[in-house]
Amino acid sequence: MRRIRTIIAYDGTDYVGWQTQNNGIAVQEKVEQAIFEVTGQRSSLQGSGRTDSGVHARAQVAHFDTDVRMAADKFAIALNTHLPADIRVLYSEETTPEFHARFSAKEKQYRYFVQTGPHADVFSRKYSLHAYMPLDLDLMNEAAALVVGTHDFSAFMSTGREVETAVRTVSLSRWEKQGKFLIYSVQGNGFLYNMVRILVGTMLGMGSGRLPRDSMERALLSLSRKDAGPTAPPHGLVLWRVKYPDFDTEEVLSRVP
Amino acid sequence: MRRIRTIIAYDGTDYVGWQTQNNGIAVQEKVEQAIFEVTGQRSSLQGSGRTDSGVHARAQVAHFDTDVRMAADKFAIALNTHLPADIRVLYSEETTPEFHARFSAKEKQYRYFVQTGPHADVFSRKYSLHAYMPLDLDLMNEAAALVVGTHDFSAFMSTGREVETAVRTVSLSRWEKQGKFLIYSVQGNGFLYNMVRILVGTMLGMGSGRLPRDSMERALLSLSRKDAGPTAPPHGLVLWRVKYPDFDTEEVLSRVP
Repeated sequence: MRRIRTIIAYDGTDYVGWQTQNNGIAVQEKVEQAIFEVTGQRSSLQGSGRTDSGVHARAQVAHFDTDVRMAADKFAIALNTHLPADIRVLYSEETTPEFHARFSAKEKQYRYFVQTGPHADVFSRKYSLHAYMPLDLDLMNEAAALVVGTHDFSAFMSTGREVETAVRTVSLSRWEKQGKFLIYSVQGNGFLYNMVRILVGTMLGMGSGRLPRDSMERALLSLSRKDAGPTAPPHGLVLWRVKYPDFDTEEVLSRVP
Repeated sequence: MRRIRTIIAYDGTDYVGWQTQNNGIAVQEKVEQAIFEVTGQRSSLQGSGRTDSGVHARAQVAHFDTDVRMAADKFAIALNTHLPADIRVLYSEETTPEFHARFSAKEKQYRYFVQTGPHADVFSRKYSLHAYMPLDLDLMNEAAALVVGTHDFSAFMSTGREVETAVRTVSLSRWEKQGKFLIYSVQGNGFLYNMVRILVGTMLGMGSGRLPRDSMERALLSLSRKDAGPTAPPHGLVLWRVKYPDFDTEEVLSRVP
């Protein structure tokens, strides 16, 4: 058996998320079906992690095993002929059996896009949150800086999910203005369920004055969900980058034309 | 009666075009319905010109008459509450009865977006043509330069439409590379039916080597449709800018946040 490693982009609008669920179609099952059509074999596809319903990916990483003798880089092209236009396999290569898309991942980066004009831009409406309100970007960046480091993020987790530990290490957390967008980039060794969306909801609440200016600090100390803000909508969120010791989607995408 | 002038953006994917037809829903009728819901009056909406089925607009200009006493700049906000998310009124103001969105227009600019990577980008797939092939951008820009000036564009018009004259003046015509996109910008005092899409199809044919290197020159001289290339698909095309003696969408959009 050979292990094939892929980078997959998807528009999450019409999916229940990455992982197969009972309530709709998942990206994972679409790609598994394409693998079956290409190889004639049922293979299970392992992603670097789940993304929620409506969340997008610019660079999800996933692997599957197959004994089909096809040049590894050709799987991307072959799979795309069996995939809908809102899912694209951007890259494929052979890797070692030790590689695991989820367990080998060192860091992930998410980006959250906010558009702040008076009228939502029609062309990016499905990939960004429209929030027409004065936002204090400096205050939001002060809050974002507090997130960097190793913290117990219990306050930034949707209730009802059991985890062994809510301690995560964040290496990058900042807001930037790019044209009509405010973009929040956050990178870390792991994220709790809804963590990025709750971080964004907290900072938008602070930046707009609807939440106290010290909400981020309080939530990080109290570990209480009610000190954090609301969960921001999914459609502004994009899984942007996944890093492994020997594989970085950012590096690969920069050399794939 | 007051005349209200608007700038409208739309994602043309799900429409038969700007103008009301028998075969589906047009952008014009969606906005006319919103005007009725806001004003209680049936007003006809005059656009700067038609866009074809599937073509987008970043800045269409349209006017309508009403005697409703509402601050003119509030129409944009009011209309948007009655419009689907793929149509946005970006701006509204009162103008003079002499202004006519179609007859007063001096110049229009269209842009055509081509993405040239091996796999179509999922996030811009509805707003750009995916053409994975080597393209000679220098040759395409030489051809684009031939378009500038006053020419008989009979070769660049879909057959079956009667026009008084096919002579048009083009003031800007060039290709630019912007990230993963090749963008063709063309501005002129008027465009024939499918003219921009046939210009693009001709230049893509030349740039990829499927058409003779002198196709543009020949078509401009012969006035024969068969010397030009195929009509490029609609979804890469965007009505980008409309200019009037006293009103330029580019200037207005630069000061509206």
